Amino acid sequence: MTDVPYVAVVGAGEAAPEELERAEAVGRAVARHGAVLVCGGLGGVMEAACRGARHALGRTVGILPGRDRAAANPYVDVALPTGMGEARNTLVVTAADAVVAVGGEFGTLSEIALALKQGKPVVGLGTWQLARGGMPVDGVLPADDPDSAVALALYRR
Amino acid sequence: MTDVPYVAVVGAGEAAPEELERAEAVGRAVARHGAVLVCGGLGGVMEAACRGARHALGRTVGILPGRDRAAANPYVDVALPTGMGEARNTLVVTAADAVVAVGGEFGTLSEIALALKQGKPVVGLGTWQLARGGMPVDGVLPADDPDSAVALALYRR
Amino acid sequence: MTDVPYVAVVGAGEAAPEELERAEAVGRAVARHGAVLVCGGLGGVMEAACRGARHALGRTVGILPGRDRAAANPYVDVALPTGMGEARNTLVVTAADAVVAVGGEFGTLSEIALALKQGKPVVGLGTWQLARGGMPVDGVLPADDPDSAVALALYRR
Amino acid sequence: MTDVPYVAVVGAGEAAPEELERAEAVGRAVARHGAVLVCGGLGGVMEAACRGARHALGRTVGILPGRDRAAANPYVDVALPTGMGEARNTLVVTAADAVVAVGGEFGTLSEIALALKQGKPVVGLGTWQLARGGMPVDGVLPADDPDSAVALALYRR
Repeated sequence: MTDVPYVAVVGAGEAAPEELERAEAVGRAVARHGAVLVCGGLGGVMEAACRGARHALGRTVGILPGRDRAAANPYVDVALPTGMGEARNTLVVTAADAVVAVGGEFGTLSEIALALKQGKPVVGLGTWQLARGGMPVDGVLPADDPDSAVALALYRR
Repeated sequence: MTDVPYVAVVGAGEAAPEELERAEAVGRAVARHGAVLVCGGLGGVMEAACRGARHALGRTVGILPGRDRAAANPYVDVALPTGMGEARNTLVVTAADAVVAVGGEFGTLSEIALALKQGKPVVGLGTWQLARGGMPVDGVLPADDPDSAVALALYRR
Repeated sequence: MTDVPYVAVVGAGEAAPEELERAEAVGRAVARHGAVLVCGGLGGVMEAACRGARHALGRTVGILPGRDRAAANPYVDVALPTGMGEARNTLVVTAADAVVAVGGEFGTLSEIALALKQGKPVVGLGTWQLARGGMPVDGVLPADDPDSAVALALYRR
Repeated sequence: MTDVPYVAVVGAGEAAPEELERAEAVGRAVARHGAVLVCGGLGGVMEAACRGARHALGRTVGILPGRDRAAANPYVDVALPTGMGEARNTLVVTAADAVVAVGGEFGTLSEIALALKQGKPVVGLGTWQLARGGMPVDGVLPADDPDSAVALALYRR
């Protein structure tokens, strides 16, 4: 399975209903494109994305911060406890070819930054906007909806 | 998939023909028991084990030391580049419920030690023997053949 | 040395002269406050900060991405190769009680985000500004100059 | 400080009095050779080694598994919390040029194995003996006493 793309879906463990809906649609789109969905394996955006992918018969991977596999949401196919805490954010990003960020808190921002540092495309849906010295910095590609977010992420990888 | 066991198969990237044969049989047995096979994703024992699991319709996960997914052997279903070098050995072990070691060099020894430290069962096929102060130390459970190695690993977890 | 504060100084490996000057002043201030300076150990902002700290008889720690100690800048007292690539950014932040960011690229942004996620104060000098949904997000505390940046970081930890 | 050697002293967090004595003597010898002592930062052999080094005016670095700096033993100069659990064992070894093992449990064995895998000299004082297929495997260099252990470690690096 080294010839299929891997898309990381990143976002917060607790999220508003409309974010969860978008995350689920992102997961569905990832699966429909035949890509593997990688995420942090927990709840909120991660769970919604996995649910969407699972319902579209996609494959989902959860890279967990703790050492207990049972912390994975029920839609994770392959659940990998790491015991590495937030250092697992680097793993989520390194395992992916492209990233879609849905909303998100500081953990999500760290994943966005790590992906951009690795030169991987990051597409955002209502996520962080970056600026430096009062000037916006290109980095996160904005998308209008889940389908075009995933299409863009896969196109740019 | 949090209710199926994960078995790590650890061993060297280059191995003798009889070790590769045993590793393949171990992989087959892991799949027949309905367990997910986790490994370091590269060649030798890792590749043989994945091939065995794949031929028995099992699921295989490769946790790679580098950042290039293409380094994975062709029988890995889910290939996860980590960019963490040997620190990925800890990840292989932490992701598993039990470990089967086939032959192996120092990297394998580190995985055996990390698993024992985590209190996980380690079953060995022609692998390291441990002693301290001239006295053998129980740790690696010896097995006579691949099938009983996997059965023992799953029973003890 | 568990009763002295540790301050991470984060910033790019290549930086403009005025950023390097500010980084050096930050390093000097860290040392004058009796704090240990932690950084990524390489050049640019990291080197300037270490030089400033060293000249004020402070202690500097460099947590390197690669495996070669010789990659450390000459002002690092304790140089620790990790072989973990960018996962070492998490280590820089986890090792510190507070963070001062000087300018910076995406790697710096990841360190800012990881520190905020860990609930540690982050003070910025000409660094990233964060927004979400068009609204600025509090997170990085702005400072006017190196001395007040370090004072603020230590006060808020 | 990139031109001084770094020696990791590895051993258990709880140890017999004679092991602690040897660890302290190892730490003293590391300091007298002008080397930096790296360890896991906790109690037992790690604490004894740091105490020995400190009393000889040496420098000690503790790379901690958790996120709390206060877990460091009182003789650690530079205490670095990692939050990475046992993955920090890899960091202890990667940060060192040579390893001295005093007694030790499975965690120590993992550090020995990781160091040998990295091609670094490992000298043992009453530590693990390795065998495979009933045949002893060269790897850990035996030493008669702490002083010669450190001398050998530094000579072989």
